[in-house]
Formats: sequence, structure tokens, C-alpha cells
Amino acid sequence: MAREDAENALNAMGEIARFIEEASRIIDKEEVSSFIDLLAEVYGDHRRKVLVMGAGRSGLVGKAFAMRLLHLGYNSYVLGDTIVPSVRRGDVVVAISGSGKTKLIVTAAEAAKQVGATVVAITTYPDSPLGKLADLVVKVPGRTKHSRLDDYFARQILGIHEPLAPLGTLFEDTALVFLDGVVYALMERLRVSEDEMRSRHANIEL
Amino acid sequence: MAREDAENALNAMGEIARFIEEASRIIDKEEVSSFIDLLAEVYGDHRRKVLVMGAGRSGLVGKAFAMRLLHLGYNSYVLGDTIVPSVRRGDVVVAISGSGKTKLIVTAAEAAKQVGATVVAITTYPDSPLGKLADLVVKVPGRTKHSRLDDYFARQILGIHEPLAPLGTLFEDTALVFLDGVVYALMERLRVSEDEMRSRHANIEL
Amino acid sequence: MAREDAENALNAMGEIARFIEEASRIIDKEEVSSFIDLLAEVYGDHRRKVLVMGAGRSGLVGKAFAMRLLHLGYNSYVLGDTIVPSVRRGDVVVAISGSGKTKLIVTAAEAAKQVGATVVAITTYPDSPLGKLADLVVKVPGRTKHSRLDDYFARQILGIHEPLAPLGTLFEDTALVFLDGVVYALMERLRVSEDEMRSRHANIEL
Amino acid sequence: MAREDAENALNAMGEIARFIEEASRIIDKEEVSSFIDLLAEVYGDHRRKVLVMGAGRSGLVGKAFAMRLLHLGYNSYVLGDTIVPSVRRGDVVVAISGSGKTKLIVTAAEAAKQVGATVVAITTYPDSPLGKLADLVVKVPGRTKHSRLDDYFARQILGIHEPLAPLGTLFEDTALVFLDGVVYALMERLRVSEDEMRSRHANIEL
Repeated sequence: MAREDAENALNAMGEIARFIEEASRIIDKEEVSSFIDLLAEVYGDHRRKVLVMGAGRSGLVGKAFAMRLLHLGYNSYVLGDTIVPSVRRGDVVVAISGSGKTKLIVTAAEAAKQVGATVVAITTYPDSPLGKLADLVVKVPGRTKHSRLDDYFARQILGIHEPLAPLGTLFEDTALVFLDGVVYALMERLRVSEDEMRSRHANIEL
Repeated sequence: MAREDAENALNAMGEIARFIEEASRIIDKEEVSSFIDLLAEVYGDHRRKVLVMGAGRSGLVGKAFAMRLLHLGYNSYVLGDTIVPSVRRGDVVVAISGSGKTKLIVTAAEAAKQVGATVVAITTYPDSPLGKLADLVVKVPGRTKHSRLDDYFARQILGIHEPLAPLGTLFEDTALVFLDGVVYALMERLRVSEDEMRSRHANIEL
Repeated sequence: MAREDAENALNAMGEIARFIEEASRIIDKEEVSSFIDLLAEVYGDHRRKVLVMGAGRSGLVGKAFAMRLLHLGYNSYVLGDTIVPSVRRGDVVVAISGSGKTKLIVTAAEAAKQVGATVVAITTYPDSPLGKLADLVVKVPGRTKHSRLDDYFARQILGIHEPLAPLGTLFEDTALVFLDGVVYALMERLRVSEDEMRSRHANIEL
Repeated sequence: MAREDAENALNAMGEIARFIEEASRIIDKEEVSSFIDLLAEVYGDHRRKVLVMGAGRSGLVGKAFAMRLLHLGYNSYVLGDTIVPSVRRGDVVVAISGSGKTKLIVTAAEAAKQVGATVVAITTYPDSPLGKLADLVVKVPGRTKHSRLDDYFARQILGIHEPLAPLGTLFEDTALVFLDGVVYALMERLRVSEDEMRSRHANIEL
């Protein structure tokens, strides 16, 4: 039993990793280029900021990305933190939602558009409400929490009864690693060294 | 330039994914089994809980894991949330730190041991202060924020000047996907369906 | 100048304190009784919980109250924390909004009603959207962030140009102290000593 | 019983309010002046920031203050938020701890001093570890969570068995209202209108 548990855990881990690796081949390069251009444009202007938003685990992915933006030298903020300045024209808002229909995020992204911010959607569904209102969509593959396991192959052939990555897991993990890839591209583009990032890392933690 | 940005981002993403996949092969099965046994033992007893802790981005990974534990039916909590009950004998504390020497986490884990909780360390360094005090260590590979790029191969042969995954990124991303693998193993072990998890998902969000 | 600063600060502090004191005389005793009855009913049943919610500084007031509910022995949760279980029939939701029209809170309170939870509104405006949908309203006086200083006396006689407590301050501070009064009443009603509360205080902090 | 509950709640509320009012008369004006001078000096320089810190409910008080500093136009941050830039010489750190010996806060304040930030302690005990290391102490009265009810008068004469404001409540509520007084003094000193504050209020909330 115990051995089976470990195999289940590490097999699922490997599956998710292969999904992410595959995703790195199919994410659209034009979309990624536009996203990085947009972020590069904001850099170094202390009056412009990047606000990242997402609900639940997608919100955590957003926070992880916002931290690295801070290390790169951005004025980055996260919806849900205590300190969130008002959003203005010229700011970039990165909204993360696998389904693209998380109500809170769609509402917040709409509000951001209305004040003139540029909204980037990180979502699996470009045709979703979030995808449609965004100025730029980066499509990141995943299976959302609204999906159900109805795959004949999985059930009948593999004998899997529950998905190896329940709810929004595939999207969330893929989005995190994708955004970490974007961080690397920004390091190169903006010529920020890891040492500089380390020096901007919080020196006081709670 | 733009095209190069996208390639940098997606290459780095692929690199991280391959690192995680490789990690799924080398993580010790005995350690994983013991971890899952420990978690299975706590399940279903409303007086026992799991407290997850980590600093910075490792803390976010911990939060993502704690959310899934909640969906599985656990009384899970996260250090740093508003609501954190006092820890007691019989509780399980999962402490996440790549280096195993994050001071706040070592201190908190020590406090947890003193009150009789069982401490599990998720770390790259079993010989670190956190690893040494833990009742159980699961070694998860990574490069910590204290590492530096001194790899001759990377610099000279590949011409890479900065690591593709700066600071603690590799550990954090690997730990997230590993813990999502553990979630799958718990679904199978505890016979919790995705539908049940969906029904325990927050039905009110902010 | 410096002396004037201190006088301004301490005068404003005194004004707010007198406002709260006055509020303690005019808050409706029937409303408070019903609120405490509702909370007393949930106590001691490990399947029932109290979820507290508020936006911005009202959200912080809610968190402060939820912490004390935890110390009293409740299963209390806060919207916005990582760990928020789904809300069910039998749960009590405490929604805090001075204006009673904070959109996020109204939406969340509606969702709570739909699943059968009992909603208590802490608001200055019983006729607001939040007040109208709540099962119970406790009216707490304040001046909301939507108010403006149009008090002839203040402007002409006192020469004050800006309110001593800007935006929602009066409501927020009054609500905090009111809810701390409710905590005391619960200590007496439920016969929970300060020592018991201290023993439930987080023994590990981050 | 119900009526008694309401009276208990509103009496305790009134007691706390009178405590705060009394505190507004005894807080030292020189200390408050120096605090406001320090904050006024940082204002308007986009490279300087104010970092607020506190544990538990004192942390919530700090967050409420940091929000108002943001509305006043400060670069304010809160320890515990996702986004916390590294602290530098020239920054002001406001550390809130009733007892002045909360370990995490003392450690964080020490780290802040070491990098050259100016540390202000808001505490009941100027002789505490936090008070001693701070560059400036503002003494705010309260009863800390380490105190016990040993007042003969309360027990024998009034028949009160538990304090009307358990644990750190008196300090926390007093500190909140005091800091709101400081906000008013800063509005006057920096000539920031309530309308300006309203315009800096978060226009997107989660």
C-alpha cells in the first residue's frame, strides 16, 4: 500500500511535469513576445506599475510572479494584498484564470480596463469573458475545475477513475512555470542579473 | 528581439519542466510513503490538523497544498493566515524550505516540535537545521536562492550568463508539483473523488 | 508646528474615542442580543462555523474579530484567508460594511444566503443592499467613505476643513470596539476565561 | 439573559472607548511630534518608504495604518504582504507591539536597524527589547496579553471575574485610534484633502 502511494504521487508528478513540458512547445510565441514587450515598456518608470490578480490557487501563482517582478525592479502589486494602489492609465494588469470566467477576476479586469490600464489575460480559454475583454491573451493549456473526467481512454483503458491532477491543478502549475519562464526572458531583456534580484529580495521577513 | 524573448521564456519553461520530471524519478519512495502514511493517519479526526508553513514563494507553495488538503477533507491551516489555531500533540506540521535554513521556518518548526507535533520537512538539504529537527524529511531537489551560477558548462559552452531559473525557483516549482502528486495519491488512498473535492471548494470567494 | 501636529493627532484620537463611547449608548440592545444569541447557538458544534467578511479596513476589523472567536473556541474563518471552507446551512456569516453597498461583500453575502447560512450585517445603513438581504442587522454608527464634510458647524465655527476621521475611519474604529464588546459578552455567556483564550492563542506565529 | 448579553457588550465597548479617550490625554506630545516629523520627512520622495509591522491583531492595526499612509500618498508596505521591498537607509519602520517583546517583531526591527532604517516603536513598554532598540518610542497605554487580572477592586468590589477586554485588546484598539489620529495630523501637516485620499483609494478590490 505504502509503496503504491509513493508511486501514485511520483507518477502524477511526472505526468504534470510532462504536461508542462508539452505546453512549453505549444504556447504561442507571438502572444509571449507581446506580453514581454508590454512588461518591458513599463520597466524603470516609477509611476507605472504591474498589478497581478487571480482567485484561489491562480491567485497564489500570481503572487509568486509578482514577487519576481519586484525582484526584477518593478513596482508590482497583487490584488488581495493590504497595499494596492489605485490603477491608472499606463499600468499593466495581469489577470490569471484558467476558465477565464472567475467572476471576481472578470469584474476586476473590467474595472481595470475602464480606468485605462492594459489588461493581459493568462487563460486556457481565449473566448471566455476574461479573454474577450483583455487587450492581450496568452493561452496557457490546462484543465479547469469545471471540467470532468469523461475521457473514455482514461477510464476504460488505463483504469484511472480520478484525474491525476484534480480541479485546476494542471493550469495552475503550468501557469506558474510559464511565468517563471517569462521572468527569465525579462532578466535577459532588461539585463538584470540574479545578484541584483537577490539584492532586491525582502531583507526582512515575517 | 521579440522572437528571442519568447524563445527564452519557453525554453526556460521547458527546462524547469524537465527538471521537475527528472525530480519525479529521484525523489525517495520511502520518504514519500512515510509522508503519505502520516497524512492518512490524521484524516477524518476533527481534532487533528495539518499546519503548512514556508516563507516567501515557498510559503505560497504551502498555501496551494493546504488548499488541496482542505478540499480533500482535512482541517488544514497555513502559517501567515489570520486564522491559525494553536498546534498540539497529534498535529502534523509540513515545513517547506529549499535551503532548510530559513530562520523563521526553523524557529516555527522548533516551536511545533516542542508542543509535540510531528514535523515534516520538504527541503533540498536533509542536513540543514530544518532537516535535522524534522521527524521526517522528504528531499526535493532544487537550487536555492543562496546558490550561485558557477557551472562551467553553462557559462562557457552554452553561453548562459544567468541561471534560467533564478533564486529558489527550481525548488519552489518542483515542490508545488510534487505536493500536487501527493494530493493525487491521497485521493486514491482516502478514496476521495474529484467531485467531493469540488463540493468542498470555497463557494464564496473574495 | 511640531506641537500643533501632536495636538491635532491627540485631539482627533479623543474625538474618535468620544464618538465610539457615544455609539455604545445608541446601538440597539435588541439587535445586539439577537447577534449574541445567534453566535452562542453555533458554539461547541464542530460542524458549524462563523465566517467573517469585509473589504479594505472593514476586512481588517473582521479579521480581528475572527481571531477572538477562534480564541473563544469557535471554528471561525475569514474571507480572504487561504483557508476558507465552503459555507453551509447552519453557518453564521458576519458581513461588515459601513455603507452596506460594498459590491464584493453584497455579492458574497448573497451567495451565503443562497446556501442557507444566516447572514448578520454590521452596517451604518440598515436600508442598504447588505442590510436588506441580511437575516439580522446590527446598526453601528459611522461616517462612510462616500460621505463628505458638509457640516456647517465644523467648517464655519471650528474652522476645520477636513474631517478629523477621513473616509470610513469612524465606522471601522467603532465596529472594532463594538465587536470587542461582543467578545466580552460571549466570554461571560459561554463561561470562557481569559486563560482559556490565551491557551487557544496561536503558539506559532509567522 | 439576552438583555444582559447586550449590556455586557455595550458596557465593555464603552469602557474601551473611555480607556482610549483617557489615553489621548496621557500620550506624550513630544513623542507624537517626533513621530509625525519623521513621517513628514519621508513624504514625497519616491525612493523612501514606510514599512509597518506587527504580529497578530497588532499586525492588523499596522495594516489599517499602512492603508491610510497609502491614501495620503506614501510608499507604504506591510510586513506579511506578498510584496515587501527590501528595507534601506532612509526608510521608516513602524513596529507595533504592546508588550514590546514579540520575538518576530523584535527580530525584524533589529534587521531593519542594521540596514540603516529608522525604527519607531509603538508599545506600552519603553523598556522592552523593542523599546530599547527603537530610534523613537511612542508609548501607547494598554494591558498586554501577558497581563493577568489581579486587581482587587475589580474582583471584590465590582464582581468582575474576567477583564472586559481580554488579552491585548486595550492596546490594539488604542493603537488603532491613536494611529488614526496621526493620519489626521498628517492630512493637516501635508495638506492632503480627504478627496485626494479618496482618489488614491484602491479602485479595484478583491
